[in-house]
Amino acid sequence: MNIQFWFEFGSTYSYPAAMRVEALAASQGATVAWRVFLLGPLFRAQGWNDSPFNLYPAKGQYMWRDLERICQRLQLTLKRPSVFPRTGLLASRVACQFSEAAWLPGFVREVYRANFEDDLDIAAPSTVARCLVRVGQNPAEIISAAQLPAAKEQLRAQTQEAARRGIFGAPSVVVGRELFWGNDRLEEALSWSAGPPAPPRR
Amino acid sequence: MNIQFWFEFGSTYSYPAAMRVEALAASQGATVAWRVFLLGPLFRAQGWNDSPFNLYPAKGQYMWRDLERICQRLQLTLKRPSVFPRTGLLASRVACQFSEAAWLPGFVREVYRANFEDDLDIAAPSTVARCLVRVGQNPAEIISAAQLPAAKEQLRAQTQEAARRGIFGAPSVVVGRELFWGNDRLEEALSWSAGPPAPPRR
Repeated sequence: MNIQFWFEFGSTYSYPAAMRVEALAASQGATVAWRVFLLGPLFRAQGWNDSPFNLYPAKGQYMWRDLERICQRLQLTLKRPSVFPRTGLLASRVACQFSEAAWLPGFVREVYRANFEDDLDIAAPSTVARCLVRVGQNPAEIISAAQLPAAKEQLRAQTQEAARRGIFGAPSVVVGRELFWGNDRLEEALSWSAGPPAPPRR
Repeated sequence: MNIQFWFEFGSTYSYPAAMRVEALAASQGATVAWRVFLLGPLFRAQGWNDSPFNLYPAKGQYMWRDLERICQRLQLTLKRPSVFPRTGLLASRVACQFSEAAWLPGFVREVYRANFEDDLDIAAPSTVARCLVRVGQNPAEIISAAQLPAAKEQLRAQTQEAARRGIFGAPSVVVGRELFWGNDRLEEALSWSAGPPAPPRR
C-alpha cells in the first residue's frame, strides 16, 4: 500500500519523520509518495503570521526539548537552527516538481540535514545546489526547471490540496481517507496502510 | 518513582490518558500524583477565548477523528460531548482539594466517563455528586468542602503552578525536570521516571 507523506522543510517534527519514513514504510511493505507543501499559507489562513512555536513561547520551548529527546532516541543529530522557521521555497519547488524522481527521497533528507544538522540557510540556492550535488544531480538544470512558472504553480496547487485534505500541520500522513498528524503518528499510519484495525472485542 | 499527571476535565486527550495512567504507571513501579488544573486561564493568557479545537476547525476535525481511533484502540467508549469544552470547575475543586484521597483516581475517571462516555454536564453539582457516590463518598460533605474559599484558592494556585512549570496543554506529565505533553507521551514519560535514557551510541 501507498502512503502520502506531507512535509514542509521548515517544520521541526517533519525532520525526524522525513529521516525515517522511507525505511519504516519499506519494513512494512509500503511505499511513500512524497508530498511537499508550504505551511505559511495554511498558517496565514488561521490568522498566524509566524510559526505557532514562536507565537506561543511555552509551546515553543516544549517543542525544542521534545525534539531533542526524539532525535536522541532516533540517534539523529540536532543543531537548533539559528533562524526558525526557515523558508524552503526553492527546495519545495524542486521537491514538488521532481516528486517521482529516484533521487528525491535522498534530496529531501539532505535538505533536512542542512536545516537541522548543519544550520544552513536552506532558502539559499547554494544550499539547495549542495543538496542536489550530494544526491548526484546537476543543480543548475534542476533549479532552472523548478523555477519555471508551471513548477511554481504546481507547488501552489499542492499546498491547496493539503488544505483541502484537512491538513493543518506537518508532517501529516494520508492513508486512504485517514489523516495522521505528527512524527508520533507514523507507526499508526503505517498500521492503517495494512488495513484498518479490527473492531475491538469488549 | 513518582510522576505528576496534570489534567483538565474538559480536555479530550486527557480522557484516554486519565483512564490508563494509573495502571500504566503501576506496571512500571511508578506512582501517580494527580494534578488537576484549568486550561481556560492558560488559553486566555495566549489570547484564546475558546478551545483551539474550536478556534481552528481543521485541527478540531482532526482531533475528534484521532481521539476516536485512540479510544477504539484502547477499547474506551467515546460519545462526542454535545458541549465542548465543558467546564469542570466544581469537579476540579474537588480533585484539587482531595488530591491525596484514596478514592480520587476513581473519581477522576468517573468524571471523564460522565463527560466522554455519557455526555453529561460535568459542571452540574448533580453530576459531580453522582461521580462521588460511585466511588463511595458522601457528596454533600465533599462538595461543601470543595467550595470553601481556601479550596477555590488552592485550584487557582495549582493552575498558576502549571503555567510556571511551562505547561500549556493537557494532559501533561512532569517527571523531575522533564515535561511531556499529550496522551501519546505517557509511555515516554514513564520510561523517564525509571531514569533518563542512556546516551546513544553512534
